[in-house]
Amino acid sequence: MTITKPHWKAAAEAKRQSILDLIPGKWRVKEPVPPPSELRDVTAGYIQQSLNARELEITETDAVGIIEHTTSGQWTAVEVTEAFCHRAALAHQLVNCLHEIFFDAAVEDAKKLDAYFSEHKKPVGPLHGLPVSLKDQFHVKGVETTMGYVGWIGTFQGKKDDPRQGAFESELVRELRACGAVLYCKTSVPTTLMAGETENHIIEYTWNPKNRFLSCGGSSGGEGALIALKGSPAGFGTDIGGSVRIPAAFNGLYGLRPSSGRIPYEGAANSMDGQNTILSVIGPLAATVPDLKLLFKAVLSQQPWYHDPLAVELPWRDDLEQETLALIKESASKPESLAFAIMRDDSTVRLHPPVARGIEIIVQTLHRLGHKVIEWNPPPHTEAYDIASRAYSMDGGADVSEHFALSGEEPVKPVMLETGLPQKTASEIAALNIAKREWQKKYMDYWNSTAKLTGTGRPVDGVFCPPAPHAAVIPHKSAPVGYTSFLNTLDYSTVVIPVTRADKTVDVPYTGDNFYSEIDKKVQAEYDAEIYDGAPVSVQLFGRRFQEEKMLTLAEYIGAEVVKHR
Amino acid sequence: MTITKPHWKAAAEAKRQSILDLIPGKWRVKEPVPPPSELRDVTAGYIQQSLNARELEITETDAVGIIEHTTSGQWTAVEVTEAFCHRAALAHQLVNCLHEIFFDAAVEDAKKLDAYFSEHKKPVGPLHGLPVSLKDQFHVKGVETTMGYVGWIGTFQGKKDDPRQGAFESELVRELRACGAVLYCKTSVPTTLMAGETENHIIEYTWNPKNRFLSCGGSSGGEGALIALKGSPAGFGTDIGGSVRIPAAFNGLYGLRPSSGRIPYEGAANSMDGQNTILSVIGPLAATVPDLKLLFKAVLSQQPWYHDPLAVELPWRDDLEQETLALIKESASKPESLAFAIMRDDSTVRLHPPVARGIEIIVQTLHRLGHKVIEWNPPPHTEAYDIASRAYSMDGGADVSEHFALSGEEPVKPVMLETGLPQKTASEIAALNIAKREWQKKYMDYWNSTAKLTGTGRPVDGVFCPPAPHAAVIPHKSAPVGYTSFLNTLDYSTVVIPVTRADKTVDVPYTGDNFYSEIDKKVQAEYDAEIYDGAPVSVQLFGRRFQEEKMLTLAEYIGAEVVKHR
Repeated sequence: MTITKPHWKAAAEAKRQSILDLIPGKWRVKEPVPPPSELRDVTAGYIQQSLNARELEITETDAVGIIEHTTSGQWTAVEVTEAFCHRAALAHQLVNCLHEIFFDAAVEDAKKLDAYFSEHKKPVGPLHGLPVSLKDQFHVKGVETTMGYVGWIGTFQGKKDDPRQGAFESELVRELRACGAVLYCKTSVPTTLMAGETENHIIEYTWNPKNRFLSCGGSSGGEGALIALKGSPAGFGTDIGGSVRIPAAFNGLYGLRPSSGRIPYEGAANSMDGQNTILSVIGPLAATVPDLKLLFKAVLSQQPWYHDPLAVELPWRDDLEQETLALIKESASKPESLAFAIMRDDSTVRLHPPVARGIEIIVQTLHRLGHKVIEWNPPPHTEAYDIASRAYSMDGGADVSEHFALSGEEPVKPVMLETGLPQKTASEIAALNIAKREWQKKYMDYWNSTAKLTGTGRPVDGVFCPPAPHAAVIPHKSAPVGYTSFLNTLDYSTVVIPVTRADKTVDVPYTGDNFYSEIDKKVQAEYDAEIYDGAPVSVQLFGRRFQEEKMLTLAEYIGAEVVKHR
Repeated sequence: MTITKPHWKAAAEAKRQSILDLIPGKWRVKEPVPPPSELRDVTAGYIQQSLNARELEITETDAVGIIEHTTSGQWTAVEVTEAFCHRAALAHQLVNCLHEIFFDAAVEDAKKLDAYFSEHKKPVGPLHGLPVSLKDQFHVKGVETTMGYVGWIGTFQGKKDDPRQGAFESELVRELRACGAVLYCKTSVPTTLMAGETENHIIEYTWNPKNRFLSCGGSSGGEGALIALKGSPAGFGTDIGGSVRIPAAFNGLYGLRPSSGRIPYEGAANSMDGQNTILSVIGPLAATVPDLKLLFKAVLSQQPWYHDPLAVELPWRDDLEQETLALIKESASKPESLAFAIMRDDSTVRLHPPVARGIEIIVQTLHRLGHKVIEWNPPPHTEAYDIASRAYSMDGGADVSEHFALSGEEPVKPVMLETGLPQKTASEIAALNIAKREWQKKYMDYWNSTAKLTGTGRPVDGVFCPPAPHAAVIPHKSAPVGYTSFLNTLDYSTVVIPVTRADKTVDVPYTGDNFYSEIDKKVQAEYDAEIYDGAPVSVQLFGRRFQEEKMLTLAEYIGAEVVKHR
């Protein structure tokens, strides 16, 4: 340490080291990790070589498969937990994806689950023995929550000597435990959470494990990276502008942004808590849709509406799932009984070639299946982007400034939030709420109007659109989040579906000079076929508010069809 | 007109006269109405004498009964509409309860319904031919909305030359028409809507028809007065602090304050629109619970969540109603299978003798039925009152000031809102939203904790409390709305149940000197057994958020039991 280094740098370094120190010696990566120029993708052979056959068998099983083994006594919670702790430890050493490690507590919890199973011959709940990773916004007993802020180290959300420090648990954590889940690590986030990449002064930069030249996305970036490396079978992130969907998309995972009020946010740390024009929501990320359904249904089984004032009394609706399955079944003989819309771009920023190809794959899949496909011509998304931006910045950056000031650290580069701006007044916020509602109403009416075009007697069943103009992005080159945040303005149910990967041999740069705007030109110029090669490419499928059951079911169907012809 | 009279007084007078002018000559009250000292209650014989036998038969039938006749072709929509138009016209002349009269348009609409029935031999919808009254916040084609503001006369919500003026309809209006309802009048409100009485410069003061010394309550006061006079079988008010429940209680009616998002507010006029810490909600008022259910279910049958961005996808839940009916049935042999709590007062303001007796009647009814009864000891309601007050005043009165300024009129006395105060900032509003959520969470946890006390294995099924410390109140003596507004802070499902009427022979004034506070002392001193004699006395029954099906079903059961032994 030099004496000119600010105190916060030392504190960040010490915290960074303390995370690494929690990795047992036997799980340390001994050799230097090869640079990305030699090995872009560390999700396959490279991480596997450090695991034994049993650990590989366990960690390469999806969450639904793990549950089948743990709830029938074939695998113990302890062996499953230890396998994922090992793989998560490796993952962190490869891409910096963990903020908190509590493997010992996890193994103790797993032992209790095994003891319960031995005694009662039945599982504790629907997630018995399943390790579940959590974005570092959730409070877990005995574990710190920093959310990437140096000033939160050793505090409760920045408050010193708060009795909740190390003692309090978020409602979701309580419910996951009641379901039998094992909690073992918390994953990295960008400071402020308002970023499409994951960087902070504590763990520094979280890399994309499928292409380590690139970002894992954000703000639930650690979740995306860890699950892509199979260091976690499934986990929970949060999304106020795309923060579940961007990392799901960038890491080739499925991710759900449910409507507000389905998964309980009660007792989680947050940025700008109390801003209620656009609410952050919690959503699961996983490798498959059945895994997303497993987590989503498990949480709903705990009746969060009795424990979170903002949760809505909407249990998992089997009837909506069954109706959707019936439509899919019917469409096998009558393909036009399902109708989708496609939004190729948002008339503001065009897509990089790999993402445009991803959308084209969806269009071709829908055409091959024979479903009705219409073009999506909604009310201007620029209005939604403007509303969302005004909501995010309504306090002029006061909340995040306060948390930066605790340590004196500076914002990291990907943070999209300006500070030191004027606060909006009650009248201005009311006007913003009205503008939001009016835009939502226009969108709703447009959605209803598609009943005239589909031929099904219903409006479209779902809409496909890109999650960003680019695939997993070159660091500090993230485009604005207009492709995801309009769905936060709408509060619509959205699922990210992995489609393909960037391929430098086919995804050649655009050489024309037809641009919507300067930002469009800038984003397009940042496409580099060589660097992006191998980056996951995904799409969003969205439906109306509270249509999670339908959207998950359609996403599973279409996702499987895309793979069939890949 | 004198030349010293401000312009707004003349405009208000002209509007007042124009309403009266819309009453056909044959329906004018010819003799001067006796003063309240001679005739307090005009709901029975006095109004009946002006109606013929057929009109009496129709207007003294409840909404469910009317629908039975109109959907089976026994009564035409036209004859039902004309009967209610006549009775509403009389009602207005007795207590000043109407802001808008559009009887001619109503009869034209009724003719169309009759033609449809003749042709198709079936009703248009679940409210076929039912006249429904609306608080003057709902826009109806061809009709003005003033909300009591002189400055809104001849405008659309204060905006001149707005194309929506006279052309636009609120979403609820569209849905009621789709159900076959006939719209024929809009009812009086206090300017700003923030008052527990109904007064404005246009129609002046709306009196309580059951005791014309007293207020009809507010802000849906015109609804309460009109329905009590059977000038309407049922109608819709709105409630941000008690505005459905206070007039229901003051007029001896049932009223429902549903949780936010069940009945569509889209396209209705409002005060402080866009304030979204505590949302105003729409609820029905009627003489019976089956009538409330009829209206509530009819609106839900229109799937408002596809037309209002703030509506929640919660259809009428038959299963919840059936579960509740099964509990009631079970309780006939096992009385303690139902458990209620009683909150006798809020530890801030004690009850006037008639209201205390109303609560006692409920307690005795529950004991007679043998149900489990516990005392309600919730988190301090003073916190909820403080949160609600801060929410209502967050813009410092800017919105209502702007609307007063349009004409230059002064606020009427019952308005509880101060103007000219500083606006809250985004950070202050965020802190308020957090305080609200934390209080809601404490209340929710307290509710859950009662599972230990009930013996049913569940928390309490419902809680009874007073709707105000006083019955229908002496003008300008309304107490603060703490007894109702805590339920807006909680967003809980609440039904008002009429219980009894004030009786000077038993409800003798309190003569002790034990008071919670100065305000308690002041409110208690305002009880006058002579003046209050005959005023309706009611209770609130509340349940958790979105428990409308359960609360309506329990209210019907308990309401009927109260009557049995009255």
